[in-house]
Amino acid sequence: MKIEFYDTTLRDGAQAAGISYSIADKKQIFSLLSSIGVDLVEGGDPASNPKDAEFFAEFSGKGLVAFGSTCRKGCAAEEDEGLCKLLNAGTDTVCIFGKTSLTHVREVLQASKEENLRMIADSVRFLRAHGKRVIFDAEHFFDGMKEDRAYALLCLKEAAEAGADTVTLCDTNGGTSPEDAYALTKAAVQALPDVRIGVHFHNDTGTAVASSLAGVSAGARQVQGTFLGFGERCGNANLSTVIADLILKNGCERTVELRSLTRTAHAVAEISNIPLDPAMPYVGAAAFAHKAGMHSDAVIKDASTFEHIRPEEVGNRDSILLSEVAGRSAVAKKLERLFPSLDKSDPKTKEILDMVKLLEMKGYQFDVADGSFVLLAERVMNAFKPSFELEHYCIKAVKPDGVNTAEVAIRVKGEVTSVTEKGNGPVNALDKALRAALAKHFPQIAEITLVDYKVRVVDSSAATGAMVRVLITSTDKKDTWTTVGVSTDIIEASWSALTDSFEYKLTGRGKIV
Amino acid sequence: MKIEFYDTTLRDGAQAAGISYSIADKKQIFSLLSSIGVDLVEGGDPASNPKDAEFFAEFSGKGLVAFGSTCRKGCAAEEDEGLCKLLNAGTDTVCIFGKTSLTHVREVLQASKEENLRMIADSVRFLRAHGKRVIFDAEHFFDGMKEDRAYALLCLKEAAEAGADTVTLCDTNGGTSPEDAYALTKAAVQALPDVRIGVHFHNDTGTAVASSLAGVSAGARQVQGTFLGFGERCGNANLSTVIADLILKNGCERTVELRSLTRTAHAVAEISNIPLDPAMPYVGAAAFAHKAGMHSDAVIKDASTFEHIRPEEVGNRDSILLSEVAGRSAVAKKLERLFPSLDKSDPKTKEILDMVKLLEMKGYQFDVADGSFVLLAERVMNAFKPSFELEHYCIKAVKPDGVNTAEVAIRVKGEVTSVTEKGNGPVNALDKALRAALAKHFPQIAEITLVDYKVRVVDSSAATGAMVRVLITSTDKKDTWTTVGVSTDIIEASWSALTDSFEYKLTGRGKIV
Repeated sequence: MKIEFYDTTLRDGAQAAGISYSIADKKQIFSLLSSIGVDLVEGGDPASNPKDAEFFAEFSGKGLVAFGSTCRKGCAAEEDEGLCKLLNAGTDTVCIFGKTSLTHVREVLQASKEENLRMIADSVRFLRAHGKRVIFDAEHFFDGMKEDRAYALLCLKEAAEAGADTVTLCDTNGGTSPEDAYALTKAAVQALPDVRIGVHFHNDTGTAVASSLAGVSAGARQVQGTFLGFGERCGNANLSTVIADLILKNGCERTVELRSLTRTAHAVAEISNIPLDPAMPYVGAAAFAHKAGMHSDAVIKDASTFEHIRPEEVGNRDSILLSEVAGRSAVAKKLERLFPSLDKSDPKTKEILDMVKLLEMKGYQFDVADGSFVLLAERVMNAFKPSFELEHYCIKAVKPDGVNTAEVAIRVKGEVTSVTEKGNGPVNALDKALRAALAKHFPQIAEITLVDYKVRVVDSSAATGAMVRVLITSTDKKDTWTTVGVSTDIIEASWSALTDSFEYKLTGRGKIV
Repeated sequence: MKIEFYDTTLRDGAQAAGISYSIADKKQIFSLLSSIGVDLVEGGDPASNPKDAEFFAEFSGKGLVAFGSTCRKGCAAEEDEGLCKLLNAGTDTVCIFGKTSLTHVREVLQASKEENLRMIADSVRFLRAHGKRVIFDAEHFFDGMKEDRAYALLCLKEAAEAGADTVTLCDTNGGTSPEDAYALTKAAVQALPDVRIGVHFHNDTGTAVASSLAGVSAGARQVQGTFLGFGERCGNANLSTVIADLILKNGCERTVELRSLTRTAHAVAEISNIPLDPAMPYVGAAAFAHKAGMHSDAVIKDASTFEHIRPEEVGNRDSILLSEVAGRSAVAKKLERLFPSLDKSDPKTKEILDMVKLLEMKGYQFDVADGSFVLLAERVMNAFKPSFELEHYCIKAVKPDGVNTAEVAIRVKGEVTSVTEKGNGPVNALDKALRAALAKHFPQIAEITLVDYKVRVVDSSAATGAMVRVLITSTDKKDTWTTVGVSTDIIEASWSALTDSFEYKLTGRGKIV
């Protein structure tokens, strides 16, 4: 069974809070999705905003789709400005939405039922006459079916008879259950045996992926979604999940290069400037991560016992989270690329594990702090040579002047370098001063950006005397690593996490665990 | 139809990368979930780690469940250390997991099929004999059914005959489709007509919520999940979504106070120190947010055209933050004991509300910081007379000496008092110095204990230059109040929250809002 995958990240995805794509972003995302085999990629709505119009003016590609709507009420298709802009977008395929819910025709459109049918038919015919492949997006189809089944199906037939080769059923409000998705898609498939039926779900009840699968079971052969589930309100059906589910679990044709799924997901998230949810099915960093001692032991024995697929199939890999409950085999497994000779019976393995447990009792957290874990293991293995040593730091914060200064003196190969910097807080001042001091010896320090800084009071009931855990995530564009520091003193905890981050970069290893 | 909701955030949720709950966190989450009507809340596994054992030793509550496993191979239930620890947890209800997949019995457990049945029956019987309600979690049930249906069902029957009143079907690897979830749950319901059947799904294929709904359609009457979907790998079924779907869409009994759903979700996220996904169904900040021009226009005309439910039904957009709630009438209501003459039409009410909104945009959070809210209102009403003024503070942190000192000079009725103190961190030193300076004028300051100190980076991507929010909860044994401070400088944010706390005490009012 071959399913046509249709991505609308560039239009519906851009409706999500916090997302705004430049033209360059759109080109990049189009290429990424297109190159792994996503059949159709919607580029935007050329009539709705100038940025989208410009994008279509300067870019074209196989599988690129322009989106628009049926002509306006009382207006002939060939005179409709929106439809003309849609034609001018120059794509082989266009997708137009129109109404199929009688309530919406009456209340929102304020048109007669006949006029709505005319708008659908005229618009499709006009676009077909100009040689376009036309997909008709049936807005509010599922709600429309509940109000007036005959009318909703009539709208679809009108589009099909006018030449649309695909009619896509949209659950615009996102309130439809997978059971209804199945039944109502089936009704459309039976009513229109000669066209391709598509489905388009939103995630307002947390079931958009399941409804997409249910639609395919009922006979739909196109699925619309956004690659990472981005979209208005609760988002759209997550297309990367749907693709993997359909190909790996439902025997659909392998038209998408699944081994590139994870890499593509990370790239799309990066361009969207949204951190990829580590728990996202198939592609998330934690999608195959195991923490419970019993589970991770079993996975090391036989991965299939606690993994529903092999992570390599989607280009992901399994990872073992270290925590209070991890075992020696988990530690050895995690370090196999760094110290291949280390096995679970090695006393050094036990020493590393004991150190992890001891530090986690104090408030450290190594399951996320991969950078600090590597440094810890190297210290135990006597493989760590610090790049610099602290001579001293001295921070000063004065109010009401609001002056925050940090003086940092470090020793590199016997030479002491001292720098004083101001910051908008003592930790910021410390960060700037340490960076400046290190940069004199190690120019690659300038490549590091701190992308995340988290503070957590470990036992908040000890109030201002409590242990504080600082987690810092750093990137040099090539790799990303997280480090941890713990102390009753937030400055000191921040200092530990910072120095671990810089030391990790200076090992020059990149991502190793 | 009444569904029993079973939350496992404190055990399965804690398996997620980046989550680690203290005992105080566990108590808070238990109370939050329990108070809105979640029937059962799993507190942890007392045999797996000392922290969970300590939690059960010091805490109990209606609906609290202790989790464990069947006895070990070749070991009598009454001699099994794990089961004895489970009994000692002192809960009315216990949940034990056991194997129902023949592959797992052979490969992972390395036991005979008869021995596995014996382990199940003996363990349940032992716990029943000690008066416990027993829930049997059938691990890998769905995979087990595909391998050997008769054996998987036999395991369930063994548990039921030994006295388990609920048998919960677990999709441990998360690979089961909603279609299989329905069919195999139905098979279990038919095979065991006399016990309650539960379902427990993981989200590895993005369908855990849908599978939970399918399970209920097939006859399951208990759903296990984690309130925000946290869990190992891709997480568990999101219980807040399942609850809202079942009650609002499937006509299940309204046993959970849905209007508190959003507030509770935000509180659980805060305690977990995980930002709540704005797109989370029902409870996310963007769950009812509209960006597309056409959609938001339609929503203003008639909300039902683009919203599948009214957000108020799940407490969204009117109980998250004071700024979004309020509502001049809400502000007037909140202050009615403090300023009885203030009503919603008073310009001062609008001024207070505007100030709250402005500060919340900067990162303040007044829904929890009642103490700071009262002081803010008093300032606007010109009813605030500060007890002291800051002359200056100067803090110094030096490493490696590890010396943290704070010098604080305050002015009380024209007289300047200056104190220098050491602390185990700069904030602690500041706290001690301010207290010592104030105590010379106001002996009642000695009655204050700080019981909670929380730090949260408001926008973590700005790294060490980010805004930091400090929340301090204080008590004088009679009353408890919380204050807030926000700054890019953690010392200054802590200082604001501290001074608000001490000023609040010095008003002598006790708890007023």
